[in-house]
Amino acid sequence: MSSETGPVAVDPTLRRRIEPHEFEVFFDPRELRKETCLLYEINWGGRHSIWRHTSQNTNKHVEVNFIEKFTTERYFCPNTRCSITWFLSWSPCGECSRAITEFLSRYPHVTLFIYIARLYHHADPRNRQGLRDLISSGVTIQIMTEQESGYCWRNFVNYSPSNEAHWPRYPHLWVRLYVLELYCIILGLPPCLNILRRKQPQLTFFTIALQSCHYQRLPPHILWATGLK
Amino acid sequence: MSSETGPVAVDPTLRRRIEPHEFEVFFDPRELRKETCLLYEINWGGRHSIWRHTSQNTNKHVEVNFIEKFTTERYFCPNTRCSITWFLSWSPCGECSRAITEFLSRYPHVTLFIYIARLYHHADPRNRQGLRDLISSGVTIQIMTEQESGYCWRNFVNYSPSNEAHWPRYPHLWVRLYVLELYCIILGLPPCLNILRRKQPQLTFFTIALQSCHYQRLPPHILWATGLK
Repeated sequence: MSSETGPVAVDPTLRRRIEPHEFEVFFDPRELRKETCLLYEINWGGRHSIWRHTSQNTNKHVEVNFIEKFTTERYFCPNTRCSITWFLSWSPCGECSRAITEFLSRYPHVTLFIYIARLYHHADPRNRQGLRDLISSGVTIQIMTEQESGYCWRNFVNYSPSNEAHWPRYPHLWVRLYVLELYCIILGLPPCLNILRRKQPQLTFFTIALQSCHYQRLPPHILWATGLK
Repeated sequence: MSSETGPVAVDPTLRRRIEPHEFEVFFDPRELRKETCLLYEINWGGRHSIWRHTSQNTNKHVEVNFIEKFTTERYFCPNTRCSITWFLSWSPCGECSRAITEFLSRYPHVTLFIYIARLYHHADPRNRQGLRDLISSGVTIQIMTEQESGYCWRNFVNYSPSNEAHWPRYPHLWVRLYVLELYCIILGLPPCLNILRRKQPQLTFFTIALQSCHYQRLPPHILWATGLK
């Protein structure tokens, strides 16, 4: 820092911000990434302070890392009210869903909202049941749309001043495919989305296979939005 | 019909179609209408035939009229599979919700989706509980958006050929207000939306009163969409 101009004020939120190119690939619904990125905010009941930070997988899944950090780092009395919002690049696996459900049963006044960019091995019955159990224990699970991407960009990404509104716009179709499959999971229907990955060139394909049970039970507006009715 | 040109083919769907001006006012989220209009379609399991019709209140509410017509007009064996989609201008009252829940328990293979333009006396605890009971019995309840208005226009309204894409576009804000209040109902939160009506000139006002329980438990994306966070 040059002494003539005096100390430069450092943005205190920088510590938690990821780089634009990281956000772009981590949360791209077409990318079948290895890592999982978690952007989270905690809104403490009553006080209007919001606490934000980011985290990634280590040798443990990022959801487990969060729970361990959250419950050990600060004394957290089971009666504390707060709402926690997660922006996850992959949805929780079956095991992590169990850990989250168990965590929420210990802290009944915590409300958890999870926004996900992609469904993690969505055909695996353990992952499907885990997501259903989360929802029955009161967790809101939604697929990230452009609105959430914009919110994450403004609050978690180290964007340059002229790029405040230039968060990545992903193809709507992929978002709708995941919304469709999430509904199948919630309703206990068989998977309808199949994702195939070709290494060279890097291309992700999908196929949709709807059975009569899908047509019978999926809400019309979901089928319309995906152009399937 | 003029004999030279031969019989004019009459559109067989005309019988069920309402007039454009009727649709426009019946389903306007700002209009606190007296009547309730129901546009419905029945998709019989297996067969790809869809049966559509419209109905209104008489001395009985339109939901009760539908159930009586549906179960008495044709022999309908409790094992029949079909999905029924309702487009209702007002959401069901508490009593109608009970009648619907009872109907669905008698016909367990019927799936019901309800899209509503407005919430009927949403502050009344009986109506709020009725909607929650419908959802717990597996009914999907959604507020009508532009996508559903367009679908209704094409399938239930007697539009003139040049007007196929000219269905009424209602202010997004009102749709979001009802989405917000429906979430409060689903989560068992107190009402936050208050609607006031001034006779001359005909104006509808609203106020929103959010308490800390709303901020704690309403999903962020709902608050963002209504500009409340």
